[in-house]
Amino acid sequence: MSKILRVNMTDRTVQYEDVPEKYRFLGGRGLTSSIVCDEVDPTCHPLGPNNKLVFAPGIITGTNAPTSGRVSVGAKSPLTGGIKESNAGTGWPQSVAKLGIKAIIVEGYPKDGGWWGLHITKDGATFFPADEYAGRSLYEVYPLLFERFGKKVDICSIGVAGEMKMAMAGICFNDAQGRPSRYSGRGGLGAVMGSKGLKFIIVNPEGGPGVHIANPDLFEQGRKKMLEALRQHDITKPKGGLNTYGTAILVNILNEAGGYPTRNFREGRFEGAAATSGEAIFETNKKRLGKELYNHGCHPGCTIQCSNTYYDEQGNEIVSCVEYESTWALGANCGIDNLDAIGKLIWLCNDIGIDTIETGGALAVAMDAGLLPFGDWQGSIRLVDEEIRKGTPLGRILGNGAAFTGQAFGWHRVPGCKGQNMPAYEPRAVKGIGVTYATSTMGADHTAGYTIAPEILSVGGKADPMDIKKADLSRNFQVTTAFIDSSGHCLFCAFAFLDIPSGFEGLVEECAGVLGANWTTDDVARIGREIMEKELAFNRAAGFTKAHDRVPEFMKYEPLPPHNVVWDVPDEEMDAVWW
Amino acid sequence: MSKILRVNMTDRTVQYEDVPEKYRFLGGRGLTSSIVCDEVDPTCHPLGPNNKLVFAPGIITGTNAPTSGRVSVGAKSPLTGGIKESNAGTGWPQSVAKLGIKAIIVEGYPKDGGWWGLHITKDGATFFPADEYAGRSLYEVYPLLFERFGKKVDICSIGVAGEMKMAMAGICFNDAQGRPSRYSGRGGLGAVMGSKGLKFIIVNPEGGPGVHIANPDLFEQGRKKMLEALRQHDITKPKGGLNTYGTAILVNILNEAGGYPTRNFREGRFEGAAATSGEAIFETNKKRLGKELYNHGCHPGCTIQCSNTYYDEQGNEIVSCVEYESTWALGANCGIDNLDAIGKLIWLCNDIGIDTIETGGALAVAMDAGLLPFGDWQGSIRLVDEEIRKGTPLGRILGNGAAFTGQAFGWHRVPGCKGQNMPAYEPRAVKGIGVTYATSTMGADHTAGYTIAPEILSVGGKADPMDIKKADLSRNFQVTTAFIDSSGHCLFCAFAFLDIPSGFEGLVEECAGVLGANWTTDDVARIGREIMEKELAFNRAAGFTKAHDRVPEFMKYEPLPPHNVVWDVPDEEMDAVWW
Repeated sequence: MSKILRVNMTDRTVQYEDVPEKYRFLGGRGLTSSIVCDEVDPTCHPLGPNNKLVFAPGIITGTNAPTSGRVSVGAKSPLTGGIKESNAGTGWPQSVAKLGIKAIIVEGYPKDGGWWGLHITKDGATFFPADEYAGRSLYEVYPLLFERFGKKVDICSIGVAGEMKMAMAGICFNDAQGRPSRYSGRGGLGAVMGSKGLKFIIVNPEGGPGVHIANPDLFEQGRKKMLEALRQHDITKPKGGLNTYGTAILVNILNEAGGYPTRNFREGRFEGAAATSGEAIFETNKKRLGKELYNHGCHPGCTIQCSNTYYDEQGNEIVSCVEYESTWALGANCGIDNLDAIGKLIWLCNDIGIDTIETGGALAVAMDAGLLPFGDWQGSIRLVDEEIRKGTPLGRILGNGAAFTGQAFGWHRVPGCKGQNMPAYEPRAVKGIGVTYATSTMGADHTAGYTIAPEILSVGGKADPMDIKKADLSRNFQVTTAFIDSSGHCLFCAFAFLDIPSGFEGLVEECAGVLGANWTTDDVARIGREIMEKELAFNRAAGFTKAHDRVPEFMKYEPLPPHNVVWDVPDEEMDAVWW
Repeated sequence: MSKILRVNMTDRTVQYEDVPEKYRFLGGRGLTSSIVCDEVDPTCHPLGPNNKLVFAPGIITGTNAPTSGRVSVGAKSPLTGGIKESNAGTGWPQSVAKLGIKAIIVEGYPKDGGWWGLHITKDGATFFPADEYAGRSLYEVYPLLFERFGKKVDICSIGVAGEMKMAMAGICFNDAQGRPSRYSGRGGLGAVMGSKGLKFIIVNPEGGPGVHIANPDLFEQGRKKMLEALRQHDITKPKGGLNTYGTAILVNILNEAGGYPTRNFREGRFEGAAATSGEAIFETNKKRLGKELYNHGCHPGCTIQCSNTYYDEQGNEIVSCVEYESTWALGANCGIDNLDAIGKLIWLCNDIGIDTIETGGALAVAMDAGLLPFGDWQGSIRLVDEEIRKGTPLGRILGNGAAFTGQAFGWHRVPGCKGQNMPAYEPRAVKGIGVTYATSTMGADHTAGYTIAPEILSVGGKADPMDIKKADLSRNFQVTTAFIDSSGHCLFCAFAFLDIPSGFEGLVEECAGVLGANWTTDDVARIGREIMEKELAFNRAAGFTKAHDRVPEFMKYEPLPPHNVVWDVPDEEMDAVWW
């Protein structure tokens, strides 16, 4: 049976524990949030000895279910002050799951200085001194680790930002090619890992028992339905939208809708959108490489394969990959229309270990406050590479995120909720996503309840983006998402199964098959709701109220071009989501 | 009849308004908190266009009642995110009151840059450009203003920290000798004034109608009782404790009690206490000047006269004055035992326009986090004079206060409540003041409910400092204080009237006499409670919950020498104060 691995950083001991019955049917977000709720005092200091960092592969992660290499990382967030589940796609949780490990709980507080790595194999978990890797580039360190621990390992780590406990430090995982480029980026969980003195968790799956599948027939039935749905849908099929243009296919779509936040949420349309879009990435690569390049998966077994690699004029890799959120955060939101510079900035974020969304947000707020002009990509590169990386005082300001940067410079135009900067959808132009930003347990997070699907993409039905009645829509998405984030499937699978009912059945059957649970699609809302209720209870105990379920004040009085709309969703509508 | 002066910084207009009936019996804190509650959205951004800054002299301020030159300044605080009343002793509110002005409300938001001053005389209020004074030392600017506007004026201003909208920027008033040294220091209200583009409010009382006293006989009866109490009590009488040693008389007392926070609240006793005490100030002055120097008042008409002036070896003034909180914050809390250096640091805080308590807190947290060693007074002077004053990135970190500094450096030992650093009493060693820190509407604030009086000083009864049942004591003090802060009397008058009942009668009779109110001492608790309820409602609407009525987590698990006590007051005891 699978185990929970408990890692104590006070005395550097590990312990394999049986999985309590109450966690039996949980995985991914459902499990990390349950453990955080059960074991972490909501009023503790996020960087103090009583916070815990929890890793959990999804329920089906480690099986051959398609596009299911997702990990949830949970803790009390130093960025939001609330509960956090930050999700990444990588082979790492597949390896963890194959070792029969259902969750890793990192707790305690180092009595002395120094950095440590944890090496997990079928034979157990051992610590190794990691000081020699501290303070260095992750692109430099990852190859050294693969050399030392073997090509079969997967690596979880923090970069220098996590070492410095910056609130926008993410937790880095390798992609399928071993790059340090897949991130549980949001919410500053890298700082929590840094506060524990833990630099790496390196996992070798060889010889592990693999994921126990209680009902293989049911699982296989579900897997086929999911696979079929993913292969059918225009967005998720091979050479479909995501495989061709990556997530940055959304740039032109959102820009057209007037909901593409530009220059720190001053406008909803960016004159440089086309030049920084997924289409531009595809066409530029084609021109530079002399051939059409389709995307690859971030982990083994992904059939959507949305990860691009972006090349320079000499045909050398600039970065992999340029996500929609990243090209926006470091592009439009900063007024930067130079795709090569954006690629370089993303590479720097990966190298240092910081969230691209929050980094772009911090730069944009700094620009808005007058520190440097919008569009200054040279200045932005300097700030990231020289200030944040080195932890200068200015780097520590930026590295603690957009809201922190705003306060440092006495600037009130900070487009965040619960301390986390908004991602690449303008709430004034797309009201439902604003309701999600405001009411999510995670702070402003598009992945918490992606109402963009019906509001903009006509996926899973249609909703008028300007309609202010969005409480039910947002709640339904948030609840369903809590289940998907627990399953281990990438959220992008939802593009397919929101439109193809058999795919949704497949999702539930895969999970039920692994767990031996007696679930149908009717159970999804109940299970998702239970997870949300735990997270909401944690946040309320941490001090969150209705007053925190709000978008920033300036959006209520600043009309957003081109539609010249303000945030006009009544407070009551936001309160109708959870209160 | 008195008026409310409304100052709009959007279009730079002023308006004299009749006082609404609902504000008739209010003054000082009762009035500022009521106006803030009535006119400011609790969820607004403190530095955005919808916050308002309200100034109100106390009820009896401007009369000849002794020790009554107090001003309340109110707003939503950029430091705490809650309501703030920050109180100072100065002639400025006496001049305001003499012009028949009951409150000044500063609202709106500048459309263009630049700094403005407001000049108020009996003929009205006019703006003048103040750019020439921006960016400069307040000790340099104040004499220029007295030269330009006449010796009779009183000056309210912000320093460079307020211009930069730092969250520990205070609002500065002149003392009786014209120094820029009396502060509404706490809560960052200087940043709110800075966000409005307002640099000065200069008031000339000449020819004003004076304060209308509805019942002169009652007022005079009360005034005599108060005066008699102040003259009798050992703490407040001429050549008594405060007049001889200043507020820093408390240093040795708190140190002896093991409740004198040392090195960022790591210890409760400081080896340098005696060298930085009120007695040391008195004796050093005596040695350096060759005579005994008794203290002076911070405003005309003060009979307590607790403000010292501290001199260097050549007999030149270092600073006036060295308060208990300042010698502690920049002394023991930073491990600094050099009184001349402490004096210099206080002077710098005055000059720049920052709160000495929060400045010392920020330095102490930075020291604890490893930025510089405890005791490094040269480094501290450099940080204040070169970093904070110039608004370098490090200066902006420190200038935003101790909690902000802690986050910047990823440091969890931040001894504050609701974002405001604790003052000079250790809650682990004196439980009642901890309950006040945790439950005050103002963040950690000793003046909000000074239970030190019975817990340490045996004034107003006796209470065991280690007794954890302190909800009733703290609430009673908080409620009574809300009344005192409205009266216009200095809180130090309470030393006398807590022990001398006729003084307490005098307090009420003075206020009732001015207002024509039908009050007795029985009304004090009701009136104080009404003020508290307004402030509590504001904070709850701003998002404060029970979870915010807590001391920092580390105090629960770090025993404090010399008594080796942790914070052991149950949460229920804190909740019993207001919930």
